Amino acid sequence: MQTNKPTLYTCISPALLHLYDLKNAVVVIIDVFRATSTIASALKNGAKFIIPVDTVPKAIEISKKIDAIAAGERDGQIAEGLQHGNSPLEYTPEFIGGKTLVLTTTNGTKLLQMALDNNADTIISGSFPNLSAVCKYLVEQNKNVVLGCAGWKDRYNIEDTLFAGAVISRIKEHFSIHCDSSLTAELLYESHKDDIIGFAPKLTHYHRLVDRFGLIEDIRFCLTPDAADVLVVYKDGKLLAG
Amino acid sequence: MQTNKPTLYTCISPALLHLYDLKNAVVVIIDVFRATSTIASALKNGAKFIIPVDTVPKAIEISKKIDAIAAGERDGQIAEGLQHGNSPLEYTPEFIGGKTLVLTTTNGTKLLQMALDNNADTIISGSFPNLSAVCKYLVEQNKNVVLGCAGWKDRYNIEDTLFAGAVISRIKEHFSIHCDSSLTAELLYESHKDDIIGFAPKLTHYHRLVDRFGLIEDIRFCLTPDAADVLVVYKDGKLLAG
Repeated sequence: MQTNKPTLYTCISPALLHLYDLKNAVVVIIDVFRATSTIASALKNGAKFIIPVDTVPKAIEISKKIDAIAAGERDGQIAEGLQHGNSPLEYTPEFIGGKTLVLTTTNGTKLLQMALDNNADTIISGSFPNLSAVCKYLVEQNKNVVLGCAGWKDRYNIEDTLFAGAVISRIKEHFSIHCDSSLTAELLYESHKDDIIGFAPKLTHYHRLVDRFGLIEDIRFCLTPDAADVLVVYKDGKLLAG
Repeated sequence: MQTNKPTLYTCISPALLHLYDLKNAVVVIIDVFRATSTIASALKNGAKFIIPVDTVPKAIEISKKIDAIAAGERDGQIAEGLQHGNSPLEYTPEFIGGKTLVLTTTNGTKLLQMALDNNADTIISGSFPNLSAVCKYLVEQNKNVVLGCAGWKDRYNIEDTLFAGAVISRIKEHFSIHCDSSLTAELLYESHKDDIIGFAPKLTHYHRLVDRFGLIEDIRFCLTPDAADVLVVYKDGKLLAG
């Protein structure tokens, strides 16, 4: 059990984040449906940067000040008072290229703020669309890692844990991993990696997005590895392509 | 999605218990290694009843007052000041038959208190040794169910979730289940049900108990379905054979 490798833990709900030491760790914010998929999409398609904020009024206020696009969702829909939502497919190069986005979401933005409040060493964001970039960065950094699943209003969800499993499956030999959450994530991913999109209809969040809002194309994008393969780093209030 | 069946949820950490409505639910306290396995063992072997308490001094005080056996563990060992611990194998018919046990443990006792504080309708305790009794009771009651995993100091652990999966696997057709935690529990159980004891060395808690304290026989007992198949119901401060 003795090793000089850095540790890797998976935190399966924001309500458990306080159990992990973030001070010496790279924290990966994971909100597969859809915040961190949308963030990767927007940056891959040329957004200058993204400012994550916690409320709609703040999103509107900041976007006016700096001539940015205000966007966000609440409970899976475009938030009241905003014109743009949390669909990764909205952020085409034509729409977002060269622009700044101010984004507020239900779960991902909240977890990012919690990671900041808990003095995370470094924060990046990850989802299937930027899986390879996340893995490459974590191996290069050679620091402790906490894979932070945003979940749904503090409840565990499978899609975020599945992405944690995809990361673990690719880079586990570089880390010391003694964590039942990480083992569960890896087992879930290994059992379903050959047909993640076929597995998706079993997830509660799928029903929220597809049955209610018809967002099947969003789901497909969010579960496609390297569909927007860009490293996303949080620095001084901004999410930037790294 | 419309159904008249009662709901079933799995709560994978005590830190998430507040997310569930316990008022109209049977809550199953699950602490496989080892509290709820030991409780089943003691009651199956003839203990009159068990008084769960949160501190060692309280266990000693109550046991003196009512001429009971005080027992408990902290961090996997017999708690300081007590003569008996949390091993299900300690509680043979010769030792515990006709006696009362006052028990304090790291995780299970705490979760039970939380279920009380959250006004659970009914509380029972479950582990592999009383799997059939738990399933039979839940189906008969025809009420909403919350499978409450005690975890380890608020962290998720696999063994408690695995037991939740065993319950779900047996009785799912009687309930309406839309919960990613329950799906994960069921998938974990279905993947490992043919060799749960062979899977155990991968679990963090296994190392805590076996590598440090050599408790391999405890582990085997705790993972054996129906090794002490008795229904355990909490009523007026006591855990009783139902």
